[in-house]
Amino acid sequence: MRGDYLQRLRAELEEKERVREELILKSRELRLNSSKAIANIHAGRFEKSGEFLKKAEELLDDVLSYRDRYPELFYLAHDAVQEFVEAYAFRHIVERLELPEDLPVDIPQSVLPGLADCVGEMRRYALTLMVRGEEFDRVERIIQLMEEIYFTLIEFDFHDKLTSNLRPKLDMARNAIERTKSDYLTARVSRAVE
Amino acid sequence: MRGDYLQRLRAELEEKERVREELILKSRELRLNSSKAIANIHAGRFEKSGEFLKKAEELLDDVLSYRDRYPELFYLAHDAVQEFVEAYAFRHIVERLELPEDLPVDIPQSVLPGLADCVGEMRRYALTLMVRGEEFDRVERIIQLMEEIYFTLIEFDFHDKLTSNLRPKLDMARNAIERTKSDYLTARVSRAVE
Amino acid sequence: MRGDYLQRLRAELEEKERVREELILKSRELRLNSSKAIANIHAGRFEKSGEFLKKAEELLDDVLSYRDRYPELFYLAHDAVQEFVEAYAFRHIVERLELPEDLPVDIPQSVLPGLADCVGEMRRYALTLMVRGEEFDRVERIIQLMEEIYFTLIEFDFHDKLTSNLRPKLDMARNAIERTKSDYLTARVSRAVE
Amino acid sequence: MRGDYLQRLRAELEEKERVREELILKSRELRLNSSKAIANIHAGRFEKSGEFLKKAEELLDDVLSYRDRYPELFYLAHDAVQEFVEAYAFRHIVERLELPEDLPVDIPQSVLPGLADCVGEMRRYALTLMVRGEEFDRVERIIQLMEEIYFTLIEFDFHDKLTSNLRPKLDMARNAIERTKSDYLTARVSRAVE
Amino acid sequence: MRGDYLQRLRAELEEKERVREELILKSRELRLNSSKAIANIHAGRFEKSGEFLKKAEELLDDVLSYRDRYPELFYLAHDAVQEFVEAYAFRHIVERLELPEDLPVDIPQSVLPGLADCVGEMRRYALTLMVRGEEFDRVERIIQLMEEIYFTLIEFDFHDKLTSNLRPKLDMARNAIERTKSDYLTARVSRAVE
Amino acid sequence: MRGDYLQRLRAELEEKERVREELILKSRELRLNSSKAIANIHAGRFEKSGEFLKKAEELLDDVLSYRDRYPELFYLAHDAVQEFVEAYAFRHIVERLELPEDLPVDIPQSVLPGLADCVGEMRRYALTLMVRGEEFDRVERIIQLMEEIYFTLIEFDFHDKLTSNLRPKLDMARNAIERTKSDYLTARVSRAVE
Amino acid sequence: MRGDYLQRLRAELEEKERVREELILKSRELRLNSSKAIANIHAGRFEKSGEFLKKAEELLDDVLSYRDRYPELFYLAHDAVQEFVEAYAFRHIVERLELPEDLPVDIPQSVLPGLADCVGEMRRYALTLMVRGEEFDRVERIIQLMEEIYFTLIEFDFHDKLTSNLRPKLDMARNAIERTKSDYLTARVSRAVE
Amino acid sequence: MRGDYLQRLRAELEEKERVREELILKSRELRLNSSKAIANIHAGRFEKSGEFLKKAEELLDDVLSYRDRYPELFYLAHDAVQEFVEAYAFRHIVERLELPEDLPVDIPQSVLPGLADCVGEMRRYALTLMVRGEEFDRVERIIQLMEEIYFTLIEFDFHDKLTSNLRPKLDMARNAIERTKSDYLTARVSRAVE
Repeated sequence: MRGDYLQRLRAELEEKERVREELILKSRELRLNSSKAIANIHAGRFEKSGEFLKKAEELLDDVLSYRDRYPELFYLAHDAVQEFVEAYAFRHIVERLELPEDLPVDIPQSVLPGLADCVGEMRRYALTLMVRGEEFDRVERIIQLMEEIYFTLIEFDFHDKLTSNLRPKLDMARNAIERTKSDYLTARVSRAVE
Repeated sequence: MRGDYLQRLRAELEEKERVREELILKSRELRLNSSKAIANIHAGRFEKSGEFLKKAEELLDDVLSYRDRYPELFYLAHDAVQEFVEAYAFRHIVERLELPEDLPVDIPQSVLPGLADCVGEMRRYALTLMVRGEEFDRVERIIQLMEEIYFTLIEFDFHDKLTSNLRPKLDMARNAIERTKSDYLTARVSRAVE
Repeated sequence: MRGDYLQRLRAELEEKERVREELILKSRELRLNSSKAIANIHAGRFEKSGEFLKKAEELLDDVLSYRDRYPELFYLAHDAVQEFVEAYAFRHIVERLELPEDLPVDIPQSVLPGLADCVGEMRRYALTLMVRGEEFDRVERIIQLMEEIYFTLIEFDFHDKLTSNLRPKLDMARNAIERTKSDYLTARVSRAVE
Repeated sequence: MRGDYLQRLRAELEEKERVREELILKSRELRLNSSKAIANIHAGRFEKSGEFLKKAEELLDDVLSYRDRYPELFYLAHDAVQEFVEAYAFRHIVERLELPEDLPVDIPQSVLPGLADCVGEMRRYALTLMVRGEEFDRVERIIQLMEEIYFTLIEFDFHDKLTSNLRPKLDMARNAIERTKSDYLTARVSRAVE
Repeated sequence: MRGDYLQRLRAELEEKERVREELILKSRELRLNSSKAIANIHAGRFEKSGEFLKKAEELLDDVLSYRDRYPELFYLAHDAVQEFVEAYAFRHIVERLELPEDLPVDIPQSVLPGLADCVGEMRRYALTLMVRGEEFDRVERIIQLMEEIYFTLIEFDFHDKLTSNLRPKLDMARNAIERTKSDYLTARVSRAVE
Repeated sequence: MRGDYLQRLRAELEEKERVREELILKSRELRLNSSKAIANIHAGRFEKSGEFLKKAEELLDDVLSYRDRYPELFYLAHDAVQEFVEAYAFRHIVERLELPEDLPVDIPQSVLPGLADCVGEMRRYALTLMVRGEEFDRVERIIQLMEEIYFTLIEFDFHDKLTSNLRPKLDMARNAIERTKSDYLTARVSRAVE
Repeated sequence: MRGDYLQRLRAELEEKERVREELILKSRELRLNSSKAIANIHAGRFEKSGEFLKKAEELLDDVLSYRDRYPELFYLAHDAVQEFVEAYAFRHIVERLELPEDLPVDIPQSVLPGLADCVGEMRRYALTLMVRGEEFDRVERIIQLMEEIYFTLIEFDFHDKLTSNLRPKLDMARNAIERTKSDYLTARVSRAVE
Repeated sequence: MRGDYLQRLRAELEEKERVREELILKSRELRLNSSKAIANIHAGRFEKSGEFLKKAEELLDDVLSYRDRYPELFYLAHDAVQEFVEAYAFRHIVERLELPEDLPVDIPQSVLPGLADCVGEMRRYALTLMVRGEEFDRVERIIQLMEEIYFTLIEFDFHDKLTSNLRPKLDMARNAIERTKSDYLTARVSRAVE
């Protein structure tokens, strides 16, 4: 076969191999900053959480730029973008007790499972409030928003490949809602008797 | 081999391939309408739930008509019919606080696991009531009916192939009953102290 | 090869095939009667439970007789004998609030996992009592006995093949104990406030 | 639920369980007789092969009668009917050096993979002829017919579920054809020099 | 969340679902025509093979047009394009006894495994020639070209994800080369003695 | 090949085989003593627990000595050392209500998952205290320390191979923390009303 | 539970653990000596092979003695006894060109697969003879005996559990026979022309 | 926990992560150069093969230096060192028609499977000679050396973990020997008649 044809194939593979490693690395950074943003909200360090989220947003722009240039490799970043969605939505919800109107990302494979996972973080957050015996209205509102996310997501009934295994995540979300309601029952008793 | 013999085989396969896709599509519709009927009960929209169930019943007739015509392909519809059974029984229970006398379907592979899954929906429904602190008699009755379904189903001890993996679903039902009882303990305290 | 040598091999295999099916059938009967004995205790029908257990004991003698005659096939009956152990121990515990001194079976592969599974039944039984708000001493005693079984069994640290996967069953038992204690906390509150 | 509704479900399951065991047993008989028909052709006992095939044909009628009565259980017989097809076609080919015009069965799931497996038997048969150094025309004709079967079957490109995993069997058939051609090369040399 | 944001996600998923099914269908057509082009070369119908290849080339243009529009779904077409590459290269080799200078496709994931699979077709082709005892120069040249493809491909040592599991296909190619050489040894003897 | 070269390879393998069995045996002893140290704390026998831990510490020295001599086999001891870490940390925490400053082991693969598993033991310990209705300050402190361990460990975000599957253990730890908080809610009510 | 009952269970497990290791060790020795007996026949050292087989026979007696005493553990020795059967039969066949009238073992699970594996050794032996160009009558006789074993074994159509996966071994045996016949074709040519 | 203790763990993990990636990269280089050394022998470019082998030897020294410094990570290099052994031994055998006296590596996990894989390369080499009809003494000597390697390796009967799955590689080696003998039969005929 002609050397230049083979050379073209090889060049494409070499570039992809390079981009692949690059994107894996950047995605890892994005994922780390996103999950630290979440962890710091749980640890009550809201400001520090904001710093990590800001770093994550910068990385997001970089990562998203691969979407146009190397769309066939972008699946490597789906998990990290999903973690960013989870962090972004979680912070928004804790800050304003509202779901975000929209998100800085519109990739269904990352947005939908990211929101589903967010329900689990909301459970942890509500639990911490309940253990402290604080802010019952807040807890009630959180539960409401958990259900709102759940009812929004179950409407997205597409082929699993297109929504990155949304279904099992929705089962976990539903489970988290049930357990939070169950804890809320107890917490209300607690408030009444103490 | 004779062309017409081969042609007969091919014709059968072509028809099956066509029917297969048809039945998968219709089953999907049936499943979607059934699960929307369930979701709307949980969301408190009883009337809307009724509309979806009605659509599901119409689809059911169509789907069941394949049973006589293409019995060897009907396994493709088992899951959808099971979801219908779950929706039908759940709505009946919520409406009348009785198990249905019988069901518009008598296919064991769909009826038995459908009823088993219904127990999980009943748990969710009871939990919502308990969180609202409402209708304790209703909750008690639901728990009773959950156990009634469970004790009815464990009598069906057949080969797993014949009852579509009923056993793991029964374990989940039993688990749901235990957890609902556990929540009910708490809810009763709540009622007493608030 | 000599016909009679081959004939001897064939005869042995034919007998084993026959015994195999026989033992599978009888084991199934034993298992069914044992699990019905358990189900009837949960349903509060103690007498009927006794009838099933009696039938199970008769079947047990027959099943155990295969142990001497066809020891290499007896593994087929292990699960059923284990279910019997579970039923026997559970009934004894519910009746006398004591662990049985010993059991009519001394096959470790069946006794140890059977006792481990019994802990799960004890949880269900305790939960029913707590929901009814009855007999708190009984519940406390059941929890004590659950722990006694657990601490007895964790001493048996042998190769998994020898104790029929005891370890995962012990994890489940420990989990059941934790959750029952957790429910007991609630039930005690319930008693205090109602 | 109404006892007679449940009784209807149970009755259906009990009948299916009975039919299931019946059909498994009869299918086993059909499979055994078919494979003995094949083995006897290889061992050069053509008449005895005929006796087994005749028994198989009688059993086939019985087995096929389940197709109308219990179509949803008939999948249990597919493998056995496939073995019959293999035996029937193989014998016909060896006897007349022609593919059969048609077959006493027209179930694609059994006919297509049965014919594919027949190619393997034809290879064994051709090999035996070549070792004996006999009937080269016969060998050539067998190879021709192997290819004819292969080219007929690759035209059936349907969903794997509908043709019982035809594809891997076709790969094996193609492999058998290659190796037989390879052996035929050698055998021709042998004829030339001896 | 804002309805239009959710609507945008849903619209994207609906389009992807539509495109997905479209592309799967067209890829299937491409694959079928390609493999028929190959089968007809083996069956000695060179002209008919050309017709199928022509149809395949038309389909290829259509399929490739999805690459720019839906690059993240194009992985669904990789197998079909690979089959086209196999057919195109095979026909070119048989026609001119040269490897093609380049190919109408330059997607490494399809080109590399497609060429590797082509080696298997070349073995089948060489075997048919040898059985007929014809054109030894042709066979020798085919073996040379098989090795040329093999030595070209082993230079492409990239991450498996990037070359669609090239490695196992290369093992099969190497195996095919060994066996063809082995048959060629025999065929040469055949020529000498007959 | 030269006999002495082969002899050297064989000698190395024979020694490794011997060391392998030795280390498996000693690791088993270490694991047993460590888990008995834990079990005895739960059973309230603090002194006896100390004896087992002391034995475990002696065995640890022996086991660790293999690390320098046979580093490539030391992975066989990782699980046992991890169990020791769990026991050591658990006892220290129960005794002083502080995390240990450091540990007698500094192998990340054993220390990190050992600490993660320790969180589960702390849950069991807290639950026992809550059931007895004792020492609420102690329970609160335990929960604090559980979270401290959790927040320490999530900072260790390395390749799974390097931290022995830390991630799933952290999920379990997080789960244990949630459930313990949930129980603590109930226990606090219990204290208030009894 | 009574200490002596538990003690009895423990004693039984401890004995089984001891016996288990003992039997694994002795089986390993048996297997090693048997496979060395085979290897030495292939290497042409018939006398040395005899020494290993004699050692194997002594070990066999010891191993078989566990069958009566610990029948439920004897499955651990099946593979080793099977290797012995393979060695014994292979040596007998090479020595006398007859199948052994019977074997010093009559355990179907070991005898049947052992004989099936023996066919593979016979192929290797025949190949060595053919490469040396020696003893064509011997080769023919070996092929005859290979087929005799094959036709004897396919009559044993029992449940796979009862015959230790005989079926795949028979497929391999059939394959070995085909390839040996194929080589024999070539060897005969060789004899004719050299 | 003390910051410096945690810091020590983190430092170790960070170093290991760095070393891990370093060693994976260098091992990849070693593997590539070794396999190119082999490929060039097959392609008849002996000198070029020598250049790659020389580069491989330099890389080997570097890779081996990790063995002392990071013995617990050295398993990452086993496959690459094994490939080097294969290349080194293959080249030595082709050059001098002797097995190497010893090897520049004495790690059993790499040496033993490397030698086993070398047998496959020897088959390919012998086949090329036979197709060319050249150097029959050379082919005979190669087959002798293949068997010598095989008989040397089957003496190493250790736990699979210790010899890196040697057993399946030995089965492949044995298979390669059988097929090469079979081809040699044919080639000898070829020489006689042409």
